[in-house]
Amino acid sequence: MATIIICSLNKTAQATVRRCYASHLKGLGSAAESHLPFISTCSPSVTGIRWFSRGTGVRFMSHGTGGRSTAGRSIRGALALSGAAAVTAAAAVAGFLANANHFQCAEMATRVSKDVKEKEQEDDILERCRGFMSSPVTDISVLHERKGEMRTRMEMLIMETQADFCKALEKVDGGTFKVDRWERKEGGGGISCVMQDGKVFEKAGVNVSVVFGNLTEEAARQMTSRGKVLKGKDGKLPFCAMGVSSVIHPKNPHIPTVHFNYRYFEIEEEDGTKQWWFGGGTDLTPVYINKEDAFHFHNTLKLACDKHHPQYYPDFKKWCDRYFYIRHRGETRGIGGIFFDDLDSPNQEEVFNFVKSCARTVVPCYLPIVYKHLNDSFTDEEKDWQQVRRGRYVEFNLVYDRGVKFGLATPGSRIESILMSLPLTARWEYMHEPAKGTKEAQMLEVLKNPKEWV
Amino acid sequence: MATIIICSLNKTAQATVRRCYASHLKGLGSAAESHLPFISTCSPSVTGIRWFSRGTGVRFMSHGTGGRSTAGRSIRGALALSGAAAVTAAAAVAGFLANANHFQCAEMATRVSKDVKEKEQEDDILERCRGFMSSPVTDISVLHERKGEMRTRMEMLIMETQADFCKALEKVDGGTFKVDRWERKEGGGGISCVMQDGKVFEKAGVNVSVVFGNLTEEAARQMTSRGKVLKGKDGKLPFCAMGVSSVIHPKNPHIPTVHFNYRYFEIEEEDGTKQWWFGGGTDLTPVYINKEDAFHFHNTLKLACDKHHPQYYPDFKKWCDRYFYIRHRGETRGIGGIFFDDLDSPNQEEVFNFVKSCARTVVPCYLPIVYKHLNDSFTDEEKDWQQVRRGRYVEFNLVYDRGVKFGLATPGSRIESILMSLPLTARWEYMHEPAKGTKEAQMLEVLKNPKEWV
Repeated sequence: MATIIICSLNKTAQATVRRCYASHLKGLGSAAESHLPFISTCSPSVTGIRWFSRGTGVRFMSHGTGGRSTAGRSIRGALALSGAAAVTAAAAVAGFLANANHFQCAEMATRVSKDVKEKEQEDDILERCRGFMSSPVTDISVLHERKGEMRTRMEMLIMETQADFCKALEKVDGGTFKVDRWERKEGGGGISCVMQDGKVFEKAGVNVSVVFGNLTEEAARQMTSRGKVLKGKDGKLPFCAMGVSSVIHPKNPHIPTVHFNYRYFEIEEEDGTKQWWFGGGTDLTPVYINKEDAFHFHNTLKLACDKHHPQYYPDFKKWCDRYFYIRHRGETRGIGGIFFDDLDSPNQEEVFNFVKSCARTVVPCYLPIVYKHLNDSFTDEEKDWQQVRRGRYVEFNLVYDRGVKFGLATPGSRIESILMSLPLTARWEYMHEPAKGTKEAQMLEVLKNPKEWV
Repeated sequence: MATIIICSLNKTAQATVRRCYASHLKGLGSAAESHLPFISTCSPSVTGIRWFSRGTGVRFMSHGTGGRSTAGRSIRGALALSGAAAVTAAAAVAGFLANANHFQCAEMATRVSKDVKEKEQEDDILERCRGFMSSPVTDISVLHERKGEMRTRMEMLIMETQADFCKALEKVDGGTFKVDRWERKEGGGGISCVMQDGKVFEKAGVNVSVVFGNLTEEAARQMTSRGKVLKGKDGKLPFCAMGVSSVIHPKNPHIPTVHFNYRYFEIEEEDGTKQWWFGGGTDLTPVYINKEDAFHFHNTLKLACDKHHPQYYPDFKKWCDRYFYIRHRGETRGIGGIFFDDLDSPNQEEVFNFVKSCARTVVPCYLPIVYKHLNDSFTDEEKDWQQVRRGRYVEFNLVYDRGVKFGLATPGSRIESILMSLPLTARWEYMHEPAKGTKEAQMLEVLKNPKEWV
């Protein structure tokens, strides 16, 4: 089986992708035409669409294409950062197209080589940092020194995920992210990227944080959701926690809100042994149900999960529905996705690879949906319903979200970064109840009874 | 010293009130003219302004007026419900006017007879119920049978407070409250009155609830904020909890949000002894600081408190600032007022009288401020700042408010009644920070450093 770099699809492959997409767009009306430029950026001659650009040597298998890319370092350098994620993204976009015409395109889009493993070129720290939204939280020289360590590899991944996603959003919106670097007095800091009141996005926040220091044994025990008892040196346990998280609230009620978060935690016990685990997830909160979008979103996640374990998608899908549940309303926040925590097996390398796949699936999960609905018209009533749903989003985030609760209760937290997940505007109508048979009632029905989308 | 019934002010007194008010309005500009019809309703010939109407025999002292009203029962009947509260209201409105010209009017407005005690006509349950927004939660025949018991007297008070406040708000808005009666499967129920998207009020909710049943010993211990251990019969403790609570969010950013809540809790131990306590408070959340409004609000509360104990106002003012504190923002929700809980001394009668004074102070605390700013013009920027402050209100209510948290966590709670305190609309801007020296910065300064207003 031969490999392709999606970005440098040969002409036949590009034509196939275009055909799939055009076929998919049939019946979507004239608004859909506007999506075509999106797919056309598949051509390497169009710059700026990072996630369709060349990868840093990451390879995907497909049929009928040439061998491993031999593209030179100069090109790779220019697009280095977003490359790896970009390839996954491109593959999944193709997957989206394929879903619409799955008999025709599925094979090309979804088959991933089992024998040609992903190998990031993690060595060139400086090169990769060039594409970030800001220099990393940890000093580049330190990252370079410790480049084999998981905390370095994860910091690079979360910085890369932030950059890829921000750039994809900037491209579709036309606006620019405001980038804030902040420091945590007790150790570490973060980079918050926020775009507010853009053309497409009401509020888009993508946040990276890398914090470290010492925990008391009691605090450490609370941090392990398994309640593990950890023994510290003189009662203190050095820890490091890092993650990338994002919430995107679009203006158009036909474009759903997306949220993702990928995180890594490390803690050192008295005898020097390190406890570590990963957590994360990506989930979608539409205002109206669109089965095609729901399928694309979940299927893209499923493909990423299935590469690592057949139980990941079904288990983490259920976990997601359970976690993003607004108990007092008896409804989920959205249509879910995946969610996992405390993942530390089978081994660190495997879990990291899984998290990397997930992180790199964010753009291809979401951006095709954004482009698809970019020019959908909407009524005042649809906007109102969006605002009511936004209110529910606020309820979940302030009442139940463990990250928000933990953040608000932790002295020294950067509140603006924690609460950037809240929408720009929200609405609470007393006794709001959609009439039977309306699109709004259909949405509620799904939130009250989570469905299988794939 | 002679008494007056405020509603039937003789011509001299009416002229005095008008003079005070007109004097107060000086310098407020033409918008203030629109407030004059408000005071003109002081004349008994204008119907509908309940809180300027005749009281049920409650008397206030003043100088230069005639003796105790001899108005017949027919008039009293028609206005019975709101009467007692109305007189207090009227007195405090006069107090508000007096504050502006205190040397001239203070004596008339604030002196309350010590020798002529308030005596409600609590006997005529049916008569009083006629003015309520709905029939009480407890069956009228049951209330009649138990009319001497505190739970009956309190239920009548909270129903009366709801009706007085709703009617005063309807009068100024022109809209009508939607009244929902609801039942609690486990015992009791409530009456929720909500006016939404009115002319003056964005969202106004006034809720009564009366719930009863059995608590486990553990739940009972959690309910007593003092953590008292209570012994139940077979581990069960019969309890009754009731209260009136309200949040009013006006549209105009120059009219502040107000909140109040007065509640009573009763629990019966194994040996039949009853534990009981009262709680409550009234607090103001302006969008912009207006010292005159702040003084009026706090002074009206202080006058009500001072009638009962000189330490009540200073203690409960501090408690209010401590309670309505958004810790993660380092700011209070508003400019406070009073807040107290677990009040059970010196005796039940005294505490009930204090709570009654507080409940009857709601209208005179707030309505004069509403009328004063009714026609204030405002800019888009001022409206935006109001929406940002609304966001903070949501943060407090969902993250810290004990009542909301308890309600959301309690199965069988009526969520719509608990969350009616949320504004119709709110806004979260990333890194919103008012420029130095602006009115917005002044507001924040006060929220970060609570002031003494009286």
